[in-house]
Amino acid sequence: MDGGDGNRAYGHQTFTRSGSHFTDRITADGRDGRPVQEGRYRLVVSRACPWASRAVISRRLLGLEGGLSTAVADPVQDDRSWPFTLDPGGRDPVLGIRFLSEAYDRREAGHPGGVSVPAVVDVPSGRLVTNDHQRLTLDPATEWTALHRTGAPDLYPAGRRAEIDRVMAEVYEDVNNGVYRAGFATRRKEYEEACAGVFRRLELIAGRLAGRRYLVGDTLTEADIRLFTTLVRFDAVYHGHFKCNRWELTENPVLWVYARDLFQTPGSGDTVDFDHIKRHCYQVHTGINPTGIVPLGPDLSGWSAPHHREELGGRPFGDGTPPGPVPPGERVAPEGRPA
Amino acid sequence: MDGGDGNRAYGHQTFTRSGSHFTDRITADGRDGRPVQEGRYRLVVSRACPWASRAVISRRLLGLEGGLSTAVADPVQDDRSWPFTLDPGGRDPVLGIRFLSEAYDRREAGHPGGVSVPAVVDVPSGRLVTNDHQRLTLDPATEWTALHRTGAPDLYPAGRRAEIDRVMAEVYEDVNNGVYRAGFATRRKEYEEACAGVFRRLELIAGRLAGRRYLVGDTLTEADIRLFTTLVRFDAVYHGHFKCNRWELTENPVLWVYARDLFQTPGSGDTVDFDHIKRHCYQVHTGINPTGIVPLGPDLSGWSAPHHREELGGRPFGDGTPPGPVPPGERVAPEGRPA
Repeated sequence: MDGGDGNRAYGHQTFTRSGSHFTDRITADGRDGRPVQEGRYRLVVSRACPWASRAVISRRLLGLEGGLSTAVADPVQDDRSWPFTLDPGGRDPVLGIRFLSEAYDRREAGHPGGVSVPAVVDVPSGRLVTNDHQRLTLDPATEWTALHRTGAPDLYPAGRRAEIDRVMAEVYEDVNNGVYRAGFATRRKEYEEACAGVFRRLELIAGRLAGRRYLVGDTLTEADIRLFTTLVRFDAVYHGHFKCNRWELTENPVLWVYARDLFQTPGSGDTVDFDHIKRHCYQVHTGINPTGIVPLGPDLSGWSAPHHREELGGRPFGDGTPPGPVPPGERVAPEGRPA
Repeated sequence: MDGGDGNRAYGHQTFTRSGSHFTDRITADGRDGRPVQEGRYRLVVSRACPWASRAVISRRLLGLEGGLSTAVADPVQDDRSWPFTLDPGGRDPVLGIRFLSEAYDRREAGHPGGVSVPAVVDVPSGRLVTNDHQRLTLDPATEWTALHRTGAPDLYPAGRRAEIDRVMAEVYEDVNNGVYRAGFATRRKEYEEACAGVFRRLELIAGRLAGRRYLVGDTLTEADIRLFTTLVRFDAVYHGHFKCNRWELTENPVLWVYARDLFQTPGSGDTVDFDHIKRHCYQVHTGINPTGIVPLGPDLSGWSAPHHREELGGRPFGDGTPPGPVPPGERVAPEGRPA
């Protein structure tokens, strides 16, 4: 959940992630007034944002590209919120808007809270439906099944939800959000607690993953996706920019191969845009990087190296199959990704 | 050469290291009016500063502790220059001053340029003699021989000076000063050129050091000392804080063992204070780290790991011997150093 007014939000003494204001659910039976419907909604993301990237990966793995279109915002937003400057004329071609804030304003003028991604917009009305980043990956897995591709994996298997929820909650608190609390801390104690918490949790997770391929069960689930979107950003931005620098991901023998395994799994690494990730963090967070200089490193070539995690067994897609290639209009420049 | 008004100097669009203003030489025969004399001069350093640390290491290796006393400034200076807040009453016990600027002012009121370390002060008059950081290590090696300990190594052997000078010039331009040009760049091009230059030179040096223990000849020389003071700071500050992040020192198979070898050589690693290094950079350079937060990482325990570089041969001290233990008043807290 990266807000459009990042710097304002980050100006607090203690970094607090604000809750999502719009939490309408899109469901199979439309019980909340929002039925799943092919082509009806548009998923607005930034490839820079770890929270939005969860939704991008789920959508790819589930094969929702045809049923749920996506708008990719420019990674560098300003106080007018996420802009569609990557599109011709600077407008999203489906919604016809220049800034994501326009869809928020149509939903509720003067809404509180920032303009964040991921967001789902109702195409006919141009109004925001939800920016609830937690639900935004669970509902596609469980409610959008009518639009899933053949062979879509079960990313949130009913029999394992309690365990998945528990793992995700720990990872959210200490890792997904912990890196932000470390990075935006303005007091030493706050930084040190967050940073120590990041590495304490990562070491526990590494212990868990040493002998098993995935976090829960023997298939890829939402829990892995949510850990992955933080791990893939770790050395590129969190290590230096957010000062989470006890070690680099590449130095952790378990997590580095685990992350490479996920990166090389179709539907996951092929959504990652290191350029967007780095430019967003280093150019937007001027409170911690006043020069706006974007580092040249790290060397990303290692992401393509063999990981040998298949020796641990596991069935990435369970009873399903890998997704097909990325649709032509959604391909990311190949830096660091497997050929 | 770290100046007292770091932030002012760093405010330029292009980072330019100002030359030393005071360049009087202290020589064996006193031909410049400054003869080598036991107890006559005081070397003022910060353990944070790589340029001052060269002089600290040379002094230890040569056994000049008895002949040339040292004052260690607080790593966090302000616009009044380097303070002696680590000493009782906040005054250097020998010079009786609270800030290094006082010795500069006694030498020349209204002198141009900043107040930098390393600096040598004439004890009887309290006046600065020199802040010429390049000379400040060569003259102790070559002119102060009467005060050297028995078994002092030859750090600047006459037969190899041309090669040492050439290597030191390349290392200075691209590495010692290159990390600063990268870190203080405010324009992308300037940063990228400096950062690329750092790694280009380090990779050339790694090639040179793959099969030989030291940079020039088979003994430790000034060239090694000057490379070491940058390498030992690399992961702690240059990698994240200065954005020299293509790789960490620990990821380079040659330079990481070379640096560990030097670190574990008596007289070199026992002068390193990672706490001073980190606090200085992260707390003083507010132009690139506005929060002043000092990172918890990196993990420094690896510095003590075996390096096996002795298998390459080489005679660290040539025909000489290792220095004795660090004098009690000069010991640094043991974080990261060999037990």
